[in-house]
Formats: sequence, C-alpha cells, structure tokens
Amino acid sequence: MSIATDLSAVRAYAAESRAEYEKHLKAMVDLASVSMQPELKDQIEAMGQYAYDLLKSAGATATIVKTKGYPVVIGELHHSKDAPTVCVYNHLDVQPADASEWVKAPFDMQIEGDKYLGRGTTDDKGPMLSVFYAAKYAHKHGVPINIKFIWELEEEIGSPSFHEFLQANKDALACDSVVVSDTIWVSRARPAVPYGLRGLQACLLKLKTGAKDVHSGTTGGLARNPIAELAELISRLFDAHSGEVKIPGFYDRVRPIDEDELTNFVASGFNVDNFKMAHELKSTRTDDPREASARIWAKPTFEVHGITGGYSGTGVKTIVPCQSEAKISMRLVPDQDPEQIFELLKAEVLRLNADVEITKEGSLKPYIGPFKGPFADAAREAMKAAFDVEPAFTREGGSIGAVVSMQEILGKPIMFLGLSLPEHGYHAINENFDWTQASGGIRLFVDYFERLSKIR
Amino acid sequence: MSIATDLSAVRAYAAESRAEYEKHLKAMVDLASVSMQPELKDQIEAMGQYAYDLLKSAGATATIVKTKGYPVVIGELHHSKDAPTVCVYNHLDVQPADASEWVKAPFDMQIEGDKYLGRGTTDDKGPMLSVFYAAKYAHKHGVPINIKFIWELEEEIGSPSFHEFLQANKDALACDSVVVSDTIWVSRARPAVPYGLRGLQACLLKLKTGAKDVHSGTTGGLARNPIAELAELISRLFDAHSGEVKIPGFYDRVRPIDEDELTNFVASGFNVDNFKMAHELKSTRTDDPREASARIWAKPTFEVHGITGGYSGTGVKTIVPCQSEAKISMRLVPDQDPEQIFELLKAEVLRLNADVEITKEGSLKPYIGPFKGPFADAAREAMKAAFDVEPAFTREGGSIGAVVSMQEILGKPIMFLGLSLPEHGYHAINENFDWTQASGGIRLFVDYFERLSKIR
Repeated sequence: MSIATDLSAVRAYAAESRAEYEKHLKAMVDLASVSMQPELKDQIEAMGQYAYDLLKSAGATATIVKTKGYPVVIGELHHSKDAPTVCVYNHLDVQPADASEWVKAPFDMQIEGDKYLGRGTTDDKGPMLSVFYAAKYAHKHGVPINIKFIWELEEEIGSPSFHEFLQANKDALACDSVVVSDTIWVSRARPAVPYGLRGLQACLLKLKTGAKDVHSGTTGGLARNPIAELAELISRLFDAHSGEVKIPGFYDRVRPIDEDELTNFVASGFNVDNFKMAHELKSTRTDDPREASARIWAKPTFEVHGITGGYSGTGVKTIVPCQSEAKISMRLVPDQDPEQIFELLKAEVLRLNADVEITKEGSLKPYIGPFKGPFADAAREAMKAAFDVEPAFTREGGSIGAVVSMQEILGKPIMFLGLSLPEHGYHAINENFDWTQASGGIRLFVDYFERLSKIR
Repeated sequence: MSIATDLSAVRAYAAESRAEYEKHLKAMVDLASVSMQPELKDQIEAMGQYAYDLLKSAGATATIVKTKGYPVVIGELHHSKDAPTVCVYNHLDVQPADASEWVKAPFDMQIEGDKYLGRGTTDDKGPMLSVFYAAKYAHKHGVPINIKFIWELEEEIGSPSFHEFLQANKDALACDSVVVSDTIWVSRARPAVPYGLRGLQACLLKLKTGAKDVHSGTTGGLARNPIAELAELISRLFDAHSGEVKIPGFYDRVRPIDEDELTNFVASGFNVDNFKMAHELKSTRTDDPREASARIWAKPTFEVHGITGGYSGTGVKTIVPCQSEAKISMRLVPDQDPEQIFELLKAEVLRLNADVEITKEGSLKPYIGPFKGPFADAAREAMKAAFDVEPAFTREGGSIGAVVSMQEILGKPIMFLGLSLPEHGYHAINENFDWTQASGGIRLFVDYFERLSKIR
C-alpha cells in the first residue's frame, strides 16, 4: 500500500496537524501583506521572514531571494538526486481590504467552526499551507520526490519582478513539473482543474479635439464632440450586445475550442443563474451554459473599464467637451499574442479615427497547458482520491502572469490544483477558507506528490 | 442735439463711472451665484440683495420677487405715464467654475488693464451693468422712456420659475418692447444683432447592468458592459462625424433657412479659422463658412456633454463596470418642439436598448423674432452709433428660455443687443469681459433708449 492511498493515515495526520495549521494560518493572515500598498512593506517583509522560518522548521532549505521588487521565498524538501522534482507555486501577498466593508477585521483571522475568516485565507495562504503540510508528510514518509517551493510576494500586482527572478534562479528551480495552487473551483460539488488562462492587453484611448470645454449653444453642430467620437469608435471596435470583436484579424489565431472541452466546462457545475447571483448581474449576454462558460474561459473579449469626458456633476452642463478617454482591455486566449493584438487594434483605431491617441498598458500572454497525459491523469486521480469526485477540466478567465513566465523559463508541464470555492470571496470582501478544503488539500497533495514520483 | 448723439458727453460719463462700474462688477463676480449648485443658495440670495440695493441706489423702484425657485429682481426708472416702456432683461446667476482649471480664481475678479477676469464677467453681470449705467444716464437726462429691469437668477438652469413669474407679474412688466443683453458678437470687428435662438432638450441616459463592479477575468465576455452599450446607443442616435441626427422624425419640423439669412450670417464676419481660434478647437466638422454658420445658428444638434462609468483612476483596473451615464442634449431650431423631440428620442432609445433609463432634464423652445421694422432699425442705428460699424443680423446658437416666455407673455418685440465677444470665454474657463465692450455698451444703450423713446 502506498503512503498516499493509506487514506486513514493521511486523514489522521491532517486532523493532528489542524491546531498547528490554524495557528500558522492566523499568524500569516494577521500580517497585512498587501503588495498594492507600498506603506505595508514591513508586513510583506515579515511575511517573507515567516515563510522562511516555516521552511526551516520543516527541515527544508530556505532562501529569501531579493528581486528589484519584493522578494521571493524559495526552498526545497529534497529526497534524492534521482527522484523527480516538482515546483509548487503559491503567493503570500494579498489584495487590499477596506475594513469598513467587512463583517470582521480582515487582518485578524477569526475561526468560526470550520471556517477561517480574513484576507488571504483562500487567496492564497490557506492553500499554500495545505501544500506545505502535504509536502512535509510525503517527505517524512520517503515519497521519492524533491519538492521545491516558490512563494511569491507580488502576485496581486501582476508579478513585475517574477520573470527576472526566474531567469536568475533557473538552475535552482530546475524541475520536471510545476503545480500551482491558486485557482477556484466552479462549485463545491466538483473539483475543477483548470488548464488554461486568458491573457490580456490593456490600453488607453484618448481623444482631444480642443483646448477647453466650450459652450454647446455657441459651438454645437460645428465643434467636434470627442465623447461621441470615442463612443462611435468603441462601437466599431466591438459589438456591445454580442461581444463580438470587429478588429480585422483579431480572431485569426484563436485556437478552436473542441466539443470535449465544452462538455467538461459544463460538467464542472457551471450554471448561469448561480453566476448571475454570485456576481450580482441583472442579465448576461447569453443564458446557454456551454456558450456562457466558453465566453468567460476560452473566448477573447473587448472590455471598456472606464470612460471619462466632459461634465460629471449634477444635472446637465451644456458644454462641448474638449477631450474624452476610455480605459479598455482585451482578454486574450491561446494562441493570440498581446503584441500582435495591440498592433491590430492600433491600426484599426487609427484607420477609424486618426486623431485618437492610443497608449499601451499592461499586457499578459494567454496560457494553455496539458489536460491529457500523465500529469493530467495524476491530477484527476489525486482530486478524485481526496474529494471523492472526479474533477472537471476547465479554464480560468483571468490572467496569472507568473504562470506564463514559468512556462517560458522552466519549460515544464504546469498543473493547477486549486482549493478555493466561489463562496470564499476571492478578491472580495469577507474572504474566507474552510477546514474541509484545507484538509482535503492536504490529502490531495500527498496523493499527487506520490503519483508524480512515479512519472519518469 | 439729442443726449445720445452727444457722444462726447456719454463717453465722459462712461469714463467717470469706470471705477464705480469696476467696483460693482467685482462685488457681483465675487458672489459665486451658481444656480446649478444648490449649496451656493446663500450666494444667489446675496446676489439678489446686491441687485436690489443697486436699483435703490439709482433711485429706481426695486422688488425681490419670490418664485418657487430663486427670486427675480425687478425695478423701474420711471419717466412718465405717457412715455414708451422698455423691459431690459439680464441674468445674474452664472455657470459653475472649477477653480483648478482656471488661471485665476473664478470668483475673485481680477482687473488686468482693460480686462476683467472671472466667472460671470461677460455672462451676464458685465453687460447688465452697462445697461444699468446707460439707463441711469438716460433717466437723469430726461429721455422720455420708462425703463423696467428684469434680473433673473435661474437663467443658467433653464429658467424653471420664469414663466410662472412672468404670468404673475404680467401687469407690472407691461411694456412696448423688450431688450435682452446676453448674446455674443461673431467678431469684435462687427456688432451682431441676433433675431433667433435655438431651443434645447436635455436628458440623462443611464444604464445599470449589475449591482457592483466585477472582475473582467472572471466575468468578461458574459457580463454585459454598460459603458459599451451606452456608447453603441449614442453612435446610433447621431453620427459623431457629420453631426447628423438619426432619430426618426427629428428633422420633420425644421424651418428651411433662406439664402438671405445665410448671406447675412457670413457677412457678420463669421470665419471658420477665427471660430476655431476663439474656441481653441483643433478642427471642425466643416470649413465652409455658410455651412458652418448654419450649423451653429440655424441647424439642430445632438451633443454629449459628459459621460461616466467604471474606473477613472490611474492606469487600468480590469473591472466590468455595473453602470454608466451620459448627459446629452439636442439644440432645436424653429419649428421643432422640445416635448415632441423628447418623445421621438425616448422611443428610439427604448427601441435600441430597452434597459436604458431616460430622464428629461431642461427643455427650451426655439425662438425667432423680427429682423426688419422699427425696432430692428433702432438696434442697427444704435449699434452703428456706439461702435462705428453697422451690425449684422444673425442668429444665436444658444438658448434663452426666458425669451420664449417673454414672447409668449409680454407679447412685444424682443431685440438682442449683446456685448460679449467670442474671446470672452462665455460658459468656459477663464471667462472675461473688457472695458471696451462695457463702455461701448453704455453708449449703445443710451442711444437705443433714446431711439425707443421716439417709436410710438
């Protein structure tokens, strides 16, 4: 009997570790490691130190690697030179939290029964601790695998130093596969294993037609209206109702979604009504679950994030404004390339309105990984063993810049074994996690590590 | 020799009055009588009191007439029962001003040589004071005319109480003609006497598609984008490049412009390059002067005055916003009717996007008056006497709701003798006025009052 399949032993280990797990989780959540707020730098640094100490306490090697931004904490539980190696990625920085909007203080973790309340509990400190406890167990029981840890502290600000960090530490992080535990199931009833992420190309569109706002009585009809011209431009770049992007060439490199994928998407438990309720949307562009899940996970988008121009006070001020600006982005899917998409957009914008200024903002490549083959099989079997349900293979609609860097630099298969649930309030107020997912995560990773140890 | 044609005496009077004129103008401009901002109510009230005191100081009768909104200050310099009576209309409320955009503080009038800088200097406090000084002079010198003053405090919000006020005070304001001094010349080189005004129908368009902003990674492609839908709607209501309104039936009641009018328009000194320079516009929808002048004076428009929605901070925040709002208006020309135009717009908006909420804001009928006959002759001659150049008869692209009410209720010819120039920044930042126009205005009205006294 393998150590992982001795489920009762792993369960007993998890149960015994619970008090310590909770102690560590509380200590970590109580550190407000918000990477978006430079004034919380000392909390980030304390978080790095805590992670370092945690590795040391487990008998792992540990290093706090400096970068041009916040450090990355790395370490290893080494088995032997000949054993396969896995890199586990988590991040220990968190989203900001406005305490006034929360039921409980976001940075003073509370335990209510099985539930852990606080910023970072589910994203990503809780899952990180589950992986860590599983790794300790596997290591202690001699599972022939080397487990390397990559704990980032800048994920929530788009991993600005991570690519450079990986290049500099490529050899230390050499491995056979990567596992990321930072994704969300579609419903508690069924584990999800995403294998794709969307990319992103953000831009600013700005149109200035005069030096100052002028009076619409005096100038209206002759003066150009920059808000209206920008509105017209946006309406020509994509169809607001269907969402269809009209930029020539935009879809050329979109990899077709196959029927299997769509079937898996829906099998994940994806449900349009739940989606609307969770996001408080009055209606959506479609109610068909296949089409809806494809739209958020596997199709590219055009989005207007904000628009300004003219008078924004009470009532109506009859001016012709002198400028308008829109913040837009396109979510991209394999095999779209942000650089090329930006060039297509720029050409079309200038063709439609040569006076519009276009500025490139953030950019992330889309990602697609294996959803068949030995690693996918290991993930499926481990999920099933830990949670008693076969997982659905899905994609994620968001972007994780670190993943694209790991794919490029480490060059190995990346699997996503997340533990977060929709009701955990990922990136939202009243974020939480729970022992069911935490302990399930320990079982999941013990099992997964053992399966990985057999992939040669 | 008539008193008015003794130009040197009137010039001397104006010169002697200059210091006092400037003192009063500064006191009035320093009162931020912004009718659009309810929190500035006390400034409006102080403005009414100041106007009342001014009338009293000139020996005129004066009353602050309460309305359902802000009061109207009226008064009279009475000559005799048998003399003709003129009502002079000005307004003493002003447009809002965002101090951060101005070179000098908008509500702390500065004098730089001949120039007066501040909100309300040209619209309409400066011209009001010129009329007032001319009236005092004519009265003192026994010109046989009764001069009634109507000083409104709600013009910039579309005169919501003025109609009712006129109905209630119809007898007190009985007269033989009305003169309005609140219009703009086409160029400093040539006085303009407008005989037509555009009307207006303003509205808010609002679209709410969810209860909160959501993450575009998680929801993008499926969630509706209210900014984009509003942009698309606007682009279907009118062509941002040509300005052509696409609402069915919109042009049905537009009165054709005759060739004579177009010829007069261009003869006013209207020049597209000057127009661009004065309003600091990079380019205009046409460069043909006939078409250009018709567009601003005699053709209806569709305008977007402001738009909001989503994230407006630095950079790009990848949200799908939950709502967007646009402030729009249509300038109308004879014989378009605001009520009917609103109904046409509403039907088209709901046909195109049934979720958009449309709210009616200010509404003003278009106006057309005499440009031939004794009053037009008096205006022409007075302008010529005061400024040495024969005026051009034009129209104004703006709207003065009070004018339509005065036409309906007082039922007498209305003439427009304005003093503002394109470079005065009417309704714009850095609004200003100058002594050349102010003193010319005093000469103009002394002459005009004397001519009116002879029209029986």
